[in-house]
Amino acid sequence: MKNITILGAGLVGSLLASLLARRGHQVQLIEKRPDLRIKNWEDGRSINLAMSERGWQAMRAVGVEEQVKKFAIPMYGRMIHDTKGNLAFQPYGKDNQCIYAVSRSLLNQTLMNEAERHGVQLVFEHKCTSIDLQKNTLEITRITPNKAESEEKSTLQPDLIFGSDGAFSAVRSAMMKRPLFNYSQDYIEHGYKELTIPPTADGNWAIEPNALHIWPRGHFMLIALPNPDKTFTCTLFFPWTGNPSFEQLQTKQQILHFFEETFSDILPLMPDLTEEFFSNPTSALLTVRCFPWTYKDKVALIGDAAHAIVPFFGQGMNCGFEDCVVLDEIIDQYNNDWNTILSVYEKSRKSNADAIAELALQNFVEMRDKVADPRFLLRKKIDAHLNQLFPDQWIPLYTMISFTTIPYFDALEVGKQHDAILDKIMEIEGIEDKWQTIDYQSLLGAD
Amino acid sequence: MKNITILGAGLVGSLLASLLARRGHQVQLIEKRPDLRIKNWEDGRSINLAMSERGWQAMRAVGVEEQVKKFAIPMYGRMIHDTKGNLAFQPYGKDNQCIYAVSRSLLNQTLMNEAERHGVQLVFEHKCTSIDLQKNTLEITRITPNKAESEEKSTLQPDLIFGSDGAFSAVRSAMMKRPLFNYSQDYIEHGYKELTIPPTADGNWAIEPNALHIWPRGHFMLIALPNPDKTFTCTLFFPWTGNPSFEQLQTKQQILHFFEETFSDILPLMPDLTEEFFSNPTSALLTVRCFPWTYKDKVALIGDAAHAIVPFFGQGMNCGFEDCVVLDEIIDQYNNDWNTILSVYEKSRKSNADAIAELALQNFVEMRDKVADPRFLLRKKIDAHLNQLFPDQWIPLYTMISFTTIPYFDALEVGKQHDAILDKIMEIEGIEDKWQTIDYQSLLGAD
Repeated sequence: MKNITILGAGLVGSLLASLLARRGHQVQLIEKRPDLRIKNWEDGRSINLAMSERGWQAMRAVGVEEQVKKFAIPMYGRMIHDTKGNLAFQPYGKDNQCIYAVSRSLLNQTLMNEAERHGVQLVFEHKCTSIDLQKNTLEITRITPNKAESEEKSTLQPDLIFGSDGAFSAVRSAMMKRPLFNYSQDYIEHGYKELTIPPTADGNWAIEPNALHIWPRGHFMLIALPNPDKTFTCTLFFPWTGNPSFEQLQTKQQILHFFEETFSDILPLMPDLTEEFFSNPTSALLTVRCFPWTYKDKVALIGDAAHAIVPFFGQGMNCGFEDCVVLDEIIDQYNNDWNTILSVYEKSRKSNADAIAELALQNFVEMRDKVADPRFLLRKKIDAHLNQLFPDQWIPLYTMISFTTIPYFDALEVGKQHDAILDKIMEIEGIEDKWQTIDYQSLLGAD
Repeated sequence: MKNITILGAGLVGSLLASLLARRGHQVQLIEKRPDLRIKNWEDGRSINLAMSERGWQAMRAVGVEEQVKKFAIPMYGRMIHDTKGNLAFQPYGKDNQCIYAVSRSLLNQTLMNEAERHGVQLVFEHKCTSIDLQKNTLEITRITPNKAESEEKSTLQPDLIFGSDGAFSAVRSAMMKRPLFNYSQDYIEHGYKELTIPPTADGNWAIEPNALHIWPRGHFMLIALPNPDKTFTCTLFFPWTGNPSFEQLQTKQQILHFFEETFSDILPLMPDLTEEFFSNPTSALLTVRCFPWTYKDKVALIGDAAHAIVPFFGQGMNCGFEDCVVLDEIIDQYNNDWNTILSVYEKSRKSNADAIAELALQNFVEMRDKVADPRFLLRKKIDAHLNQLFPDQWIPLYTMISFTTIPYFDALEVGKQHDAILDKIMEIEGIEDKWQTIDYQSLLGAD
C-alpha cells in the first residue's frame, strides 16, 4: 500500500482521495483554503456546475449519487431569451434527458465527507511551497492569517503525489521546469462576472427553474442556472475591451443603460445589479494544455491541473471526475504497477482532454450566437430527427458528450462527420419545408 | 531621454543596446555570464549561425557589416551527402546568392564592442532575481563563484526594461504571472548534439567549406557548417527515444557502429567522435510563442524571449535582429511616445514571428527528408525555373526568407500559393521530361 499525497481538496481531489483510500492506501489531502464545511469558499467565482452523465458515473462509483441528487436541480434544455424578452425552449435530448445544476459547495462537502469516511486525512490551510520531483518531496507551509507569526513548514515524502490543484497548479509548475514538458495557456477575449437573481417577494423562483437560461447576444451572452435556495446564479461572459466590454461599463448609469438595452427582461429581476457588478470580481477564462501529465511512478496531474478548459460545454468538472473513474479502472487492471498505471492513464486521457477543450471553445460560439439563428435551430431539429430515425447510428454531439460516456475524442470525430452531412442537408433547396420528409436513409447510405 | 535596462547581452541584446544608446538613451546591459571577450561562453550548445539578408540589414544599421564580413564564410548552397558518400550540390539561389556561416562568439564580441562605443554600460555576472512589473523594478544579484560569499543585491528602477534574455526569459516569466498572458512552449521529439570535424593533417578544410552540409536520413539528420579555424561544427538532430535515438547510443561501439552505417563518409573525419559524443550535452529544441510582448510603456520582450524557434531555417538570430531594426524604425516614427512605440512594435512583429516559427518547423522535414527525394528536387528546379521566367512575380520561398526582407508572414502566405501551384504542376504527366518546355505563362495566368 502506498503513501499518497493529493494536493487540492476541490471536487476532483476529494473524489480521487475516496477512490484511492478505499483501496487501502494511506491518503493525505492537502488544501490551502479553510475547511469548506466550516467556512465557505464562495467568492463570486464559482461558475455554476452542470452535472451530466460522466459526473453521475463518478458519483455512483463512490456511492453518493442519491445524496447528490437531493440537491441537484434538473435542467431539461436551454431557455433562450431574445432582446424583446421572448422565450424559446430548446430541449437537450429526448425522453426528458437533462443535466443538473449542482451547488459546488454542497457537492464538495459531500465528497470531503466521503473521503473522510474512507480514512483520508484532510489537512486544510496548508499550501505547497516547493516540490522536488527527483526526491519526491513536498514542502508544506501552514497559512497563518497573521503574517508576523513564524511560518510552520514541514517536508513530506510520499510514494506518490497527485496534483489536483487546479488551473494554476503548483505541481504542474514544478513539472514545467523539466525539459520536454509541453505547455500552453490560452486566454479567450472574454472575462466573466457573476450576478444574482433573488427569489420573488413571495419566495418563488423568478424564472423557470428547470432550464439553463441563455441570453445570446452574438459576441457575448448572459446565462442563469438555478440554485436550491431559489436564487439563480447569472454569469455574464463579456469582452474585456472593445465595444461593448467590461472596460466600458464603469458607472452605475452605464451598467443600467446597457442592461436595459440588452437584457431588458432580466433587469427588473436583479435589484442588486450595480452593487454586485462593482463588488464581484471580473475573472479570466483560459484553456491549459500540457504533456506529460506524469513523472515516473511518482507524480500525476489530474483535473484542471492537467487540462483546464473554458466552461461552455459544462464539462470541466465532468471531465475531471472521468479522469478519476478511468484512473480507478486502470488501477484495477495493473494492480500496483504504478509506472504502467500512470503511463496508461495519461495516454488514455490526453486525447480526450484535448477534444473536450476544443468542443468547449466551439460551444461558446453556439451558445452566445448560433442558438438565436433560425437556420441553426432547423439544423438542430434535423439532428434530433436523424437520431429518432436511426437511434443507434446517429447520436447528436451534445447527447454523446452529456448523456453518454463515449470518449470525448470519439464524440468529437463523429461530430465532425455529422457536421459534414448536416452541411450538405442544409444546402438542399427548400430544406426548411421538407426536412421531415426527406429520404435520409439513402442520403446517409450514399455518403 | 530614457533610462533603459536590457537584460541579456546575447546577440539581440547587444545589438539593441547600440541602437538605443546612439539615440542618446542611458542604456545598461546586464548579463549573467562573464564578459565573453575575456572568457568564452562556448559550451557545445551554440548551433552554428547562418547570417542572411535580415541579419546583414541589422549589421548595416549599426555599421559593422564590413567587420563581420571579415570572419563570415559564404555558403552558396546545400551539399547533400547520401549514405554511400555521394555528394549533390543544391544552390540556395541564383547569381551566387549565399548565406554566411558566422561565429557566434566573434559576432557577439563585435556587437558588445559597438555597444560600448556608444556608451552602453555592460554589467556581467549579474542575474535578475526578481522583477516587479507594476513598480518597474528589477532586483539584480551578483553571481559569485563562491556560494558562501554574501550575495550582493541591488534594485534598479529604469524607465524601460527590455527582456532579450532568451528562450527561458526571466522577464517573460514575470509577465506570465499576469492574467491574459498567452503562452506556449512546444518541444520537438528531437534533441541535438554538437560534434567537430577538425582540419586535415595539412591544415586544410576536410570538406567543401562554402556549403552547408546535410546528411539527410529521413527522420533525422546531421549538418555541418564551416568555422574560420577550418574546423566544421556538426550538429546531429536526432530523436530522444525510439529506434534509432540518443537513448540507444550508449556505448562507444554503438556510436561507432551507427555512424559507420549511417554517416560512413564522415566517420574518418571525426577522430574524437565518441569522446565528444559523451562529453557534449544533448540539448532540447523548442518553440516558444507568447503574447503580449509588452507591458504598458515599461517592458518589452525581444528576440528569443518573445519567440524562440527551432533552428532549421537558420532564422532565429536573423529574426531577432529584424525585431531590433523594425523597433528602431518605429521609434523614428513615434518619437518618445513609448506607449505607441511598444504597441506598434508587438503588433508588427507577432504575426511575422509566428510565421517564421511555422516555417522553421516545416524546414526540418525538408532538410532531413525531402532534400534526398528526386521528386522534391525536380520541384525545386521548377520553382527556380519559374523565378528565372518571372523574376518579379515568382520568388521562391527560400529566397524571400533568406535574401530579402519581405515580412515573414507575407512570405509564408505567398509560399502557400506557390505550393498549391507547384502541386498542380507536379501532377502533370511526364513532368520530369517536359518541365523546361511547359507554357507556364498560361498556367499561372489561368490559376
